[in-house]
Amino acid sequence: MVDLLDVTLRDGLYVAEYLADEKRAYSIIKHLIQAEIKFIEVGYWNNKKERPGPSSCNIEYLRNLPENQNIYCVMLQEKQALSANFSELASTQVKMLRFSSMLSNIKIIEPCIYRAKEAGFKISVNLIRASEHSLEEIIKVAKIADSWGVDWIYIADSNGALISEQVYKIISSLRDNIMANIGFHAHNGLGFALSNALEAIKAGASLIDASICGIGKGSNLPTELIGMFLKTKFLSDIEIIPILNAAYEEIYPNEGAYILTQLENLCASILNYNLDNILFLKKHIDMSNKSFFMKLMDEIKKVHYYKNSNQKIGVENERLYKKA
Amino acid sequence: MVDLLDVTLRDGLYVAEYLADEKRAYSIIKHLIQAEIKFIEVGYWNNKKERPGPSSCNIEYLRNLPENQNIYCVMLQEKQALSANFSELASTQVKMLRFSSMLSNIKIIEPCIYRAKEAGFKISVNLIRASEHSLEEIIKVAKIADSWGVDWIYIADSNGALISEQVYKIISSLRDNIMANIGFHAHNGLGFALSNALEAIKAGASLIDASICGIGKGSNLPTELIGMFLKTKFLSDIEIIPILNAAYEEIYPNEGAYILTQLENLCASILNYNLDNILFLKKHIDMSNKSFFMKLMDEIKKVHYYKNSNQKIGVENERLYKKA
Repeated sequence: MVDLLDVTLRDGLYVAEYLADEKRAYSIIKHLIQAEIKFIEVGYWNNKKERPGPSSCNIEYLRNLPENQNIYCVMLQEKQALSANFSELASTQVKMLRFSSMLSNIKIIEPCIYRAKEAGFKISVNLIRASEHSLEEIIKVAKIADSWGVDWIYIADSNGALISEQVYKIISSLRDNIMANIGFHAHNGLGFALSNALEAIKAGASLIDASICGIGKGSNLPTELIGMFLKTKFLSDIEIIPILNAAYEEIYPNEGAYILTQLENLCASILNYNLDNILFLKKHIDMSNKSFFMKLMDEIKKVHYYKNSNQKIGVENERLYKKA
Repeated sequence: MVDLLDVTLRDGLYVAEYLADEKRAYSIIKHLIQAEIKFIEVGYWNNKKERPGPSSCNIEYLRNLPENQNIYCVMLQEKQALSANFSELASTQVKMLRFSSMLSNIKIIEPCIYRAKEAGFKISVNLIRASEHSLEEIIKVAKIADSWGVDWIYIADSNGALISEQVYKIISSLRDNIMANIGFHAHNGLGFALSNALEAIKAGASLIDASICGIGKGSNLPTELIGMFLKTKFLSDIEIIPILNAAYEEIYPNEGAYILTQLENLCASILNYNLDNILFLKKHIDMSNKSFFMKLMDEIKKVHYYKNSNQKIGVENERLYKKA
């Protein structure tokens, strides 16, 4: 099974200051809980406690996270990891710590990993800027992290420069060489975020990072997009509508019209709607619907996902199979 | 060899009225000529001659196209094709006509195809809304168009609903069944435009549609993105900088800041630049450079594409191979 880890509140902060707002962060988190996104990254942990919500992950913010069965995580950069108070962090609902590390610095975080494990955390080591390194270097460093008994080792394509063949090669080589679960963090500068994530899954990754509307440094894999793929390919429990609601309520008003266009395009493509279908829908928006996007969401709600007698997974809605 | 066909001035018109402006159209065309994009679609042909530039492709607009060695084309929808004056059209620089057709209507355009061939045009038949049809239906209809002796048969994923495996299957089956060259038109609603285009090429397509910044109904494959891939994968003659200039001068001012972000993300990913590289560049923008994007373009200009002694294609710039 493949799970998603939503990084909106962490990676998004690089490009969207409005995500630092605590109230907005909790709203986004509630949507992600409804969407059954299993792992929710609530921000970068650092010592700047006066900073709001996700921008520091101060103890008050972390203690007030909505109670739920999902797994909250925070990310720590190398320097921050060295000064973190793990037992204090363990008094919050955060259950997983993600340590980002450049490959050349991997040894620096070793003592932090042991302390964090002792405090009871699930641990992920995220190897960043993978595209700057050879496969051999990546394997070598991953083996070191693996020897610490961590739960996940992540490959982060921080520069958004990997193409799908490379991702498949890296992840499948890791699968042959390490015990830990494997995660993948894509960026979309080259338009390969989705393909790379799907290749990573094919090669053995079981956890995929994504952010709502792809918000993040260099643009990310959109949670709503990969969520839809996991639902149609693996009948994953993910609910798309709450992610779309979060995008509509919290991202679109701050980013502008292009986000709504992007969401509408995604929905129309999922529904396999042609221009005539779209024009028909636009003509028949009734007053109870706020927008064309709301109308598309209503259509998405009607999509039925099923397994047939051969255990093949299918997708059906009123229109999808009205084919000649 | 794979060629690009830029559809900015035709597909873009669905979502960007400002592209109807004749002066802007000629400016974009000049950039595309500089970029050595072999096929340039200059608009939709129709009888509404009073409409400006690409929105009607009236004879005056077509006669004033910049002289060049590239191949100009226009698209005709079924109804328009029936009333077109092909000998008048042949008095312009347009050398290729693209007939879009729903699979169920293919017979309607047959007489138009013969008249257009007689007038000396290269002919493409574009089968639209491919995702609404079975592979068998597509092959059957493509064979009909092929029997007319057309130059290209296009598969258009008008609804943006095809995934890469489907594209590979459709194009490779066509390759086995028809004589005409094969083209592919992607959309990006599912984030698969680039992957689908690359699969189409792998399966035998030799002409790929794209638009600057992906402007178009449901969002297209960006010309600058696929251009970069063709350059690095096949040492294509395409020049990226003029496409980026067209994007910066003609699309970004009309679409807004997100376009610049998208272009910057693309350039940074091509260059395999990490956040530190980007922050360094941003700090050292000198007064002669207008923006961070200009600085990134300067870096792209330094990239050197080469074939090594094994005829393998490589990419090199000052930074790319400063790897550990």
